[in-house]
Order: sequence, then structure tokens, then C-alpha cells
Amino acid sequence: MTYCLAIRTDNGFLVASDSRTSAGVDDVSVYSKMHELPTSDDRCMVLLSAGNLATTQAVTSRIQRDLDDSEAETSINRLDHLEDVAEYIGAISTRVQRGPEGATQADFRPKATFILAGQIGQESHNLYLIYPEGNYIRVSEEKPFLQAGETKYGKPILDRIVESGMSLEMAARCALVSLDSSMRSNLSVGPPVELAFYQADSHRLDPRLRFEEDDPFWRRMQDAWSRNLRQAFMDLPRFDWE
Amino acid sequence: MTYCLAIRTDNGFLVASDSRTSAGVDDVSVYSKMHELPTSDDRCMVLLSAGNLATTQAVTSRIQRDLDDSEAETSINRLDHLEDVAEYIGAISTRVQRGPEGATQADFRPKATFILAGQIGQESHNLYLIYPEGNYIRVSEEKPFLQAGETKYGKPILDRIVESGMSLEMAARCALVSLDSSMRSNLSVGPPVELAFYQADSHRLDPRLRFEEDDPFWRRMQDAWSRNLRQAFMDLPRFDWE
Repeated sequence: MTYCLAIRTDNGFLVASDSRTSAGVDDVSVYSKMHELPTSDDRCMVLLSAGNLATTQAVTSRIQRDLDDSEAETSINRLDHLEDVAEYIGAISTRVQRGPEGATQADFRPKATFILAGQIGQESHNLYLIYPEGNYIRVSEEKPFLQAGETKYGKPILDRIVESGMSLEMAARCALVSLDSSMRSNLSVGPPVELAFYQADSHRLDPRLRFEEDDPFWRRMQDAWSRNLRQAFMDLPRFDWE
Repeated sequence: MTYCLAIRTDNGFLVASDSRTSAGVDDVSVYSKMHELPTSDDRCMVLLSAGNLATTQAVTSRIQRDLDDSEAETSINRLDHLEDVAEYIGAISTRVQRGPEGATQADFRPKATFILAGQIGQESHNLYLIYPEGNYIRVSEEKPFLQAGETKYGKPILDRIVESGMSLEMAARCALVSLDSSMRSNLSVGPPVELAFYQADSHRLDPRLRFEEDDPFWRRMQDAWSRNLRQAFMDLPRFDWE
């Protein structure tokens, strides 16, 4: 399992992800789930992945090969709309999940879910959630965030706080406490934590941060959230007999 | 779906549950999931249920019939240990789930999960989680709470706050904000909210509270938690460029 999320604000977007991959409790590794796609300068795209590692690696690898191959049918640099890129990645993902021709294990479904965040030219920046089945949805105006993987533990704080008008830094803090809650409640979500900011029309991710478990800022954030939450709890109204 | 939870403290226990039952988005009803069992005065038991409504009704009905039938093999008043009651309820539950003899739908599994909280005589008060398969676990000393149903949204706050040494009122506030988070993030969890306190060795639930959606205390609690959480968030450390 894993946990990644993206928040769209009026000024840009914020993406965040954990880095734990587990193929069983005795096979836990660190892999980044945040893939900055190597586009031309008129665009910027980042792909977050949750699910089968073989599938996500094959998908990013195929995206790169299509970029390198001038005879490829299409590539992320030749598509004019982010929606088309979502469709293109969805198609690659379902093809990869079907496995090699003649694969016989009917119950083997190496599923993966992706979040595509990006901007092409002057089209507005946007977020897409690409399902394992290859179809996709845009983020909504009312709930301007998308999640993939182990989403539930970290959702309540997003439901309460996230709104389109917030600053990217606010969005980033929101993403960090959401990740922190997931990591505390579920062992399959773990550090390092990755975070990237995108300012609308900039066509580049900046800054891109990575916090190891013992990173002083990440520690400070976790401690503050713990302390503030406890205080928020202590300040709740009493029952009338107390 | 539903959400119910129980917290064991040194001084007693606290049980809480929502009241929404849905057999589809166009078939939503209100049913209590908190069943105070009609025991003799030397004991107290409350059963929280999550899952199939027909199963949970059949289980509580069977418990009552065994109490009324002097020739029944056993009943909750004749067992000496709470653990034995958990085993007894687990056995009823699996029998009910199998359905009538000759039932042919192999994929029809009307599952239900129960939390049994109680005390018999001077044995210490305890909590059991009874799985749909009929087996059960005791609550642990380290994480002295049990959840059933839609558990994930409301778990982070329990992970952070709950400990055996807390007062029952603290435990109750913890349960209320945990329920509030679940209700905000998942439509299948809904009011009224029920809450019951048990003081060790008292052999009775007191007080037992029920909050309708517009109950002033429940509203005040929700508003305070919303406001305090937002403040906790606003007080987080800034990035160094802010």
C-alpha cells in the first residue's frame, strides 16, 4: 500500500506522497511514488502512483520510451491537452496490467492507480485520477483534492481544511498532516515523504522537497501537529456534570 | 455501513455508535446499533453491532429467547465469564449467517461484527471484538479501544489520544470526535449518536445518552472540534521561505 495526494488551488497545485512499498511484511522497500515526467519546456507533469510496483514501473518506462522514439504513435510532449495525457496513461496502464500475451492466471490483476497533475501551455493546470481500469476523473471545484492508495485515515483533515483559495504552503501543511495521520495508523505508509509545489504557468515543479524520517522540519511539523491536536481535544466542551 | 467503538479505561468503559443503516442509497434507515442486554443484577453487558441488519436482529433476538427459555442450553445470565459470552454470541452469529438449511446462494454472506462490552460479578470489565467468523479478541492494554464498521476515518484521533488512564468523560469526547470525523467523510455513518458510560463494578450503564443531529450539546461539540482543529492547523510551523 501507499498514500499519495494532490491538491489543486487557484494558484497552482501541490503533490505529496510516501515512499513505502511492501510485498509482504518481510519485504518492505523504499521507492518514490512521485514521478516528474521529463516534458518539454511548454508543459509540466507529475505522476503519483499507488498499487503494483511492477505496473507503475512499466508505465513510467513506456512513457519514457515513447518520448525517445520519434516513430511512436504519440507521447506526452505531442499531446495538446492534459486530459489526453490522462487517457494515454490509462491506456498504457490497462495494457500493462493485462500482462504478456498468453498469460493464463485469470486472478492475477496487478492493479495501479495514478494521479496526474500538470499543465500544458496556457490551458489551466489540473489534476486527474486514473483508475486501474484506465478511465479517469478530473478534480472537482468543491473538493479540490485527489487521493490514491490508503486514503481514509488522512481524509478527514482534507475534508475540513482544503479549499481552492488556500495558499500552496497551506495546502502543503494540509498534505503533511494528512500523511502523518496515515503513517501513524497504517504501517504500510512510511517515509521518506515527498512534496512538490507547482505555481500556475511556471511549467516547473519548484520547490521539490523530500523529508527523511529524522528530518528536523518534518519532525517539528509532526510534533507541533501532535501537540496542537491534543490541545484542540483538551479544549472541547465538558459534559454538564463535570 | 455503520461505525461503533468501545474504549476501556481503568475505571470502566465507554461505548458509542451511530444509527444509520443503508441497504442502498435509496434505502437509508435509523436503527440503534447499541443493544443493552437484559441481564441479571450481578452483571452488565452491551453489544454493539456493525454489518447486516437481519443478522444482528436475529442474534439479539436469539440471546433474548435463550434468556426466556429455562430449558435453553445456556444464556448470558448463566455464563460465568465474559469470554464465554463472546464465544456464545460468536456461535449464534455464525449459525445465523449460514441461513436456513438448504439455502443455496453460496455467495450470500450476511456478515456482522460485534463488540461486546461488559462485566460479570467481580471479574474485571472487558471488551471483546467478535468477528463474522465467530472468533473473538480481547482489547489490548496498549490500545485500549475496539472499532467496528467504517473504522478508518475515526482511527487517527483514537491512536493519538486514547489511554487506559483517561477519565470516562475524556474517552467519551474522544469517541464523539471520532464519530464526527467518520460522519463527515462517509455518508453511510449518521446520527443519532449514542453514548453509554460504565463505571467499573456498578453493573449498569449510566448515563446513556442519545444525540439527535440538532442536539445543542452535540452541535456545540462538533463546532468546537471544527474550530479547534482549524486553529491547531493554523498554528503549524511555516516553511522557511514564508
